[in-house]
This record gives sequence, structure tokens and C-alpha cells, in this order.
Amino acid sequence: MPGEIRKLKYIADEIREELVAKINMYGADVRLACLVAGEHAASESYINGIVRNSEKLGIKTELVRFSDSVTENEFVKKMDEINRDDKYSGMILQLPLPRQISHSMVSRLVDYRKDVDGVSPFNQGLLFAGQPFMVPATAWAVDLTLAKIAKERGMELAGKKIAIVGRSVTVGKPVFHLALKRNMVPVVLHTKAQYPEEIAADADIVVACCGVAELINENWVKDDAIVIDVGINTKNDETGKSVLCGDVNAAAVNEVASLVTAVPGGIGGVTSALLFANTLKGWYMVNNRKELKFDFEV
Amino acid sequence: MPGEIRKLKYIADEIREELVAKINMYGADVRLACLVAGEHAASESYINGIVRNSEKLGIKTELVRFSDSVTENEFVKKMDEINRDDKYSGMILQLPLPRQISHSMVSRLVDYRKDVDGVSPFNQGLLFAGQPFMVPATAWAVDLTLAKIAKERGMELAGKKIAIVGRSVTVGKPVFHLALKRNMVPVVLHTKAQYPEEIAADADIVVACCGVAELINENWVKDDAIVIDVGINTKNDETGKSVLCGDVNAAAVNEVASLVTAVPGGIGGVTSALLFANTLKGWYMVNNRKELKFDFEV
Repeated sequence: MPGEIRKLKYIADEIREELVAKINMYGADVRLACLVAGEHAASESYINGIVRNSEKLGIKTELVRFSDSVTENEFVKKMDEINRDDKYSGMILQLPLPRQISHSMVSRLVDYRKDVDGVSPFNQGLLFAGQPFMVPATAWAVDLTLAKIAKERGMELAGKKIAIVGRSVTVGKPVFHLALKRNMVPVVLHTKAQYPEEIAADADIVVACCGVAELINENWVKDDAIVIDVGINTKNDETGKSVLCGDVNAAAVNEVASLVTAVPGGIGGVTSALLFANTLKGWYMVNNRKELKFDFEV
Repeated sequence: MPGEIRKLKYIADEIREELVAKINMYGADVRLACLVAGEHAASESYINGIVRNSEKLGIKTELVRFSDSVTENEFVKKMDEINRDDKYSGMILQLPLPRQISHSMVSRLVDYRKDVDGVSPFNQGLLFAGQPFMVPATAWAVDLTLAKIAKERGMELAGKKIAIVGRSVTVGKPVFHLALKRNMVPVVLHTKAQYPEEIAADADIVVACCGVAELINENWVKDDAIVIDVGINTKNDETGKSVLCGDVNAAAVNEVASLVTAVPGGIGGVTSALLFANTLKGWYMVNNRKELKFDFEV
């Protein structure tokens, strides 16, 4: 019996409702700074999405634009101003950065309270130590979605094998630490793994975050597994039209898995909502010096 | 054919020789501060070992003693002095700390350049991001030992399955990240794992860092695997005398594995030498603002 392709809009909606309610309750003036150097078609559309979606929640996104030839010093000086200015609750360093700016260097300088993308070593270290504060929104979306699905099924996550296909600092690695915190048994797969399908097909849960369109097919998935699809790629459909697809071949995997998250309509929307949850966490920490916890968390 | 129980003194010796040579070459005045609150028999013997072993290399260890009732403020004030004083190249926060001092809070305040135990979130974050600076010496010892054994065998570590039995912030988690950096395929096991023996017995390499005397027996290990024993425990021998033992039942595992590291005489000695390698890294970073790399590294 084929499994379910699960849309996750209901989770994103629950998050957004709580954000609006809390922002109103606190009367919070929440501002997110988005530092952009140069112009890149793909990131412009991402940035426009952030501006539009933040407004709906009552969060102001300020674009801080630099020319493509901005020096690292100028860029860091602006970061420093935003770090020090309590008016700002969050800071995004929009990728790609120009060649002369080292992302790994500048991400060390984001105030951890405002590090809504979870790219600073301090936040990565807290996650490593099992005391996460700001976690990259995509990884948080994977963890939250899994926890919600498990809860709805009365399923215990502790002890379950989870195969994480991909090892980026924004998805694979943080998902590993969050899985460990839930007492799952995580294995991390990547391009150098031998027979990765076999290893994944031994897991109760597969997280596809490899960035390869529809790589994960039925050979990677065991019967009744839960599959979380993090990918957002494009492919040509039968008519040659470019359409969105994930890292999972949902039609094929669905024949064996019990649930596959949809793309589009899945993790992406939850991620988008959680980016603003991080921004509100930043506002709360700056203003109350305490960590904000949400009702939507499981 | 039984495998080999490998003593690792030759690796520790190689490290110490290079440390002495570099300290002499730089004419370096290397000082390690060890902050100790109260008196605990086990930690006193550990501290004495550090003092004695550092002296042999030409490193001065200064014990900074507090009473058991020291306040967190007093403790942090002293940490701050050591952070700011370029005379010090390293700082150890000796455990256990008294109840009123939060280890997770104070470890956030160690200057990352002097964080020889790799406990600060900044260093943990660098490791997480694949750019390790100071890594807990035990985890470094595991990684270095594995790399040396692989090199000697002409064996490729990339793609190999490594089962890490234990998930502490000082061993299991950093070993996971170091393994990933070497393109191995890591799985992390712990007390909540179901059938951990089966998962471990599927791995090419098993790292035993669970802190349970001789837990790892032949059922956890596949033919010809390499087994790294991080444990230092005690057990009673046949005559009832207390003797040291590892997390691995070496006699049993040795029947199937191709190599098991010895306890005592294994990872412990390499760890001890690498603690001082971290201290010299600290001296070099404070004085030259660059990372020191060693010839012994693989």
C-alpha cells in the first residue's frame, strides 16, 4: 500500500500563528537586517520572499545593500553596528558573498543572539554541546516535523536509526546533533560513502539533504520508513517544462515508505516560518536576556 | 589468527619529541593554568600527572587553587585575568567544579586560543564547521592514531564505516566530526540504541568511548576491524586485585579484530601528549596570531 505524501503547511501555519500572537502580545518591534552584496537573481527572489513573509507577521526586514566590490572591513563594520544596535533582532549574511569576503571569517562575528541562520561558531558550539540556542531554520524544520509526525503516531523517536544523506553545516550536521539530542541513532552519508543505499535502507528515518534532484529512490528506503525531503531542485517534466522537485523521487519512494514530505509544500515552508521564529528568539534574548520557548515545539 | 594489541607509546613519543624541539626552537615560555576548586583524590592525581609531564617538556603548569566555596564571580574573574594575560598559553577548568559553578556557563568564557581542553562553544563550533582549531585531546588522539594506523597499512579511511560507541562532548561528538572530516561514514551509538552490537559489527572501525569496563566484546566487532579503546576503568583481576582496563574486552575482541589499542599504554598516553600540543598551539596563536601545525599530524 503506497504511503502518504505529506504537505506541511499546517505546521508552518501553527508556527506563524504563534509568532503573530506573541509579537502582538509583547508589542515587539522586531527588525531583521539582511546584508546583501551585489545582485544575484536567485538570492533576490529569496530576499523578496523574506521581506514579504516577514511583513505578514509584523516583522520588518531591512535590506542593507553593498556593491559587489565592498571590502571585508566595510562589511564587518556594518555587521558590528547591527550587533551593537538593540533595534535589530536578527542578521542574515546573504550568500553568495563576493570573493574578497570570507564567509567563514565574517560568520564568526555575528552576535549569537542575532544569528538567525545559526552560522556563528558560538551557536554551532552550543548545538554541539547539546544546548542549542539558534539552529539553522532548515535543520530545526526537519527536527520539528519529525517530532510532530512521531507524536501524532505515538511513535518513540529514541533508539530509532536515522540516516542523514548530506553533511552541510546548515542541514546535515545540525540535524545529526538534534537527532542525537532526541536519542536517535544517527548515521551521516555523503558522496564518499560506499553503498549508501544499503545503509539508508537500514534506517527507520531518512533525511534527504544532499542537494541532488531525486537521488533518493526506493532502493534507499526500507518498508514503512519516514522520509524527510529537504531538497529544492528543478527538473524538466514530460513536456519539457521546468518544475520544482526534491532530493527524493517521491513517487518511487512512496511505494515503500509510510510517509514522504512533499516538495514543494513541505520542509521549505516550515523553514521559512522558523527563520522568523529565530528572529523573535533574537528579539526576546536582546530585550529579556532569556531564551524564548514556543508552544509549537515538541 | 588473533589480531594485535597495539601499544601507542611510539606515537606519544613522537609528539613529545616534536614539542620539545619546537619549544626549544622558539625559546617559548609556555605556561598552562589549571584552575582547581576544592580537593578530590582522583583529580589531584590527574593534576599531579599534568604538572610532572609538562615539566619534562619545558612547559610550566601553574595550579590556581580555590576553596570549595568559591563563588562563580570569583572564579570567572580569575578566568578573565588568565584570558587577558599573554603569559598564559592555556587554561584547564579542572572537574569536578563545586555545585555553585556551572561548567557549561564558565566553559563559554574560556578564550578560544587558550582552550586546551576544547570545551568552549567557539572551538566546538569551529570543529562543527569543519575548521577545527583546539579539539579535546582525547578525540584528537583517536583521530591521529587512526590516521597513523591507516597510513602504515596503506588503507584509505575515506568511505569506511566507523561506529562511535559513546556521545560525550569530549570524545564521541568530536570524534564524529573528525571522522566526517576524513570522509568516513560515522554512526554514533549510545545507551538508547537498539541492537548496538549489530550496528557496530557492521563497521570497519569501532571507537569505544562509552566509559563502561569491557563492554565491547567480540559481538560488537567484525572480522579484521580496527578497534580504538578510549576507556580507562578499573576491574578486579582473578586474585581480586584492582587493575586498569578499557571499554573493550581486548582478549575477546582480539580474536576477530585485526588491531585493538592497548589499555593501559594506548590512547591515554597519546592524549596526555596532545594536551601539551594544544598548549603549544595556544602559545603560538597568542604570540604569532597564526595556527601552529605539527609534523606528527597526518
